[in-house]
Amino acid sequence: MPSAAVLVIGNEILSGKVVDTNSPYLARELRELGVDLVRILTIPDEIDLIASEVRAMSEAYDFVFTSGGIGPTHDDVTLDAIAQAFDRPIVESASMMERMERAQGGKPPNESQRKMALIPRDSVLIDSGDLWFPVVVVENVHIFPGIPELLQKKFQSIRERFRGDPFHLRRVYVTLREHDIAHSLNDLLGDFPELMLGSYPRIAEEHYRVLLTLESRDDAYLERATASLLERLPSDGVHKVE
Amino acid sequence: MPSAAVLVIGNEILSGKVVDTNSPYLARELRELGVDLVRILTIPDEIDLIASEVRAMSEAYDFVFTSGGIGPTHDDVTLDAIAQAFDRPIVESASMMERMERAQGGKPPNESQRKMALIPRDSVLIDSGDLWFPVVVVENVHIFPGIPELLQKKFQSIRERFRGDPFHLRRVYVTLREHDIAHSLNDLLGDFPELMLGSYPRIAEEHYRVLLTLESRDDAYLERATASLLERLPSDGVHKVE
Repeated sequence: MPSAAVLVIGNEILSGKVVDTNSPYLARELRELGVDLVRILTIPDEIDLIASEVRAMSEAYDFVFTSGGIGPTHDDVTLDAIAQAFDRPIVESASMMERMERAQGGKPPNESQRKMALIPRDSVLIDSGDLWFPVVVVENVHIFPGIPELLQKKFQSIRERFRGDPFHLRRVYVTLREHDIAHSLNDLLGDFPELMLGSYPRIAEEHYRVLLTLESRDDAYLERATASLLERLPSDGVHKVE
Repeated sequence: MPSAAVLVIGNEILSGKVVDTNSPYLARELRELGVDLVRILTIPDEIDLIASEVRAMSEAYDFVFTSGGIGPTHDDVTLDAIAQAFDRPIVESASMMERMERAQGGKPPNESQRKMALIPRDSVLIDSGDLWFPVVVVENVHIFPGIPELLQKKFQSIRERFRGDPFHLRRVYVTLREHDIAHSLNDLLGDFPELMLGSYPRIAEEHYRVLLTLESRDDAYLERATASLLERLPSDGVHKVE
């Protein structure tokens, strides 16, 4: 089961000026691909901090995804930080310069644009669709821009690289209160220790009070666990199962 | 300048089933209060992991806020983890039991509810409005539920405890492309090294291409920096200033 971590780089998120939609997007995508996302971290645009977090994540997880901090301005330090993380020099990539020049009809990149061609030595470049800027990959670290439209387009173009065994999911909507079913849930987990069971109280829903999610990579196991749960709950306590 | 970190505890966020709206909410609130939020971390409901992250955050920052993992079910381990982080025992709080009994008109709490009265020894309890469950504070760690409506209600009731010097903010909407103004921004920062300057490209906006944010705790400094920026940009390159 591949594991993954997402590193969101951006003062604008921490200062509440921009809501991070990239990590929720990646969480949904990775789940669908059967990848186990185990850490989402948001930090400021600070080179030493980014470098040490990237290094730690790269060692601990199969895939690392970064969002933000690549661009031509003063606060775009992600590529420098990732070079530092892996002790590689930053070099002007001829291949990046070519792509950029081609994208603007042969006009050579200006000084600010050239900054965007500076990437860690021996990065792997993966072209994605009609965007001139490729996905830059260093070791197991996949570097994405912070702009949601671009991140999504880029991720879509390489998502099949990450596919593992899928999770199967059932949802049970319960009309009882969580503390009235907590005992049944504990018993269920005693019998199905491998089940991933989530219990989410809702206070603004009309038809149910708790959403239960049951998950497993083993579909038959999931079906047995779901049937066992339904036996443990009073039948009028279940709004629907899906 | 007080610093803060937010720890979001919840498999449901990492698996993409629920979008975390609590950390964006806290980011906006803390900014308005003049608190410097420097880290947002989302991790699974795992007791040892929560304990070590809480411990590290508590040492590094002035205020820590946790979201999620308090409730009666199997996956609610936040309070146990925080007790472990500070090497305190978990005890049944008479004061919590009283509140719970009062909230349900004198009916004694059931077994699952009693679990919710188990908190780290010597926690500080802060009552908030009409909710029976108080905010539990251990050292500098403020423990909030994951349900957004409850988290917000609780935070509102104690927010003035965190107020520091406010940040002042100006926004400049620029019609040029980011790489055409990157040089001017770097020069501006040379003259105003204390300025917090953000540059956010937008690809779906009709009237501008880059949003610049200028911030400082010193209003006069901010005004001088904003004037200096506007001098550096061509006047037809600015859509509006606010």
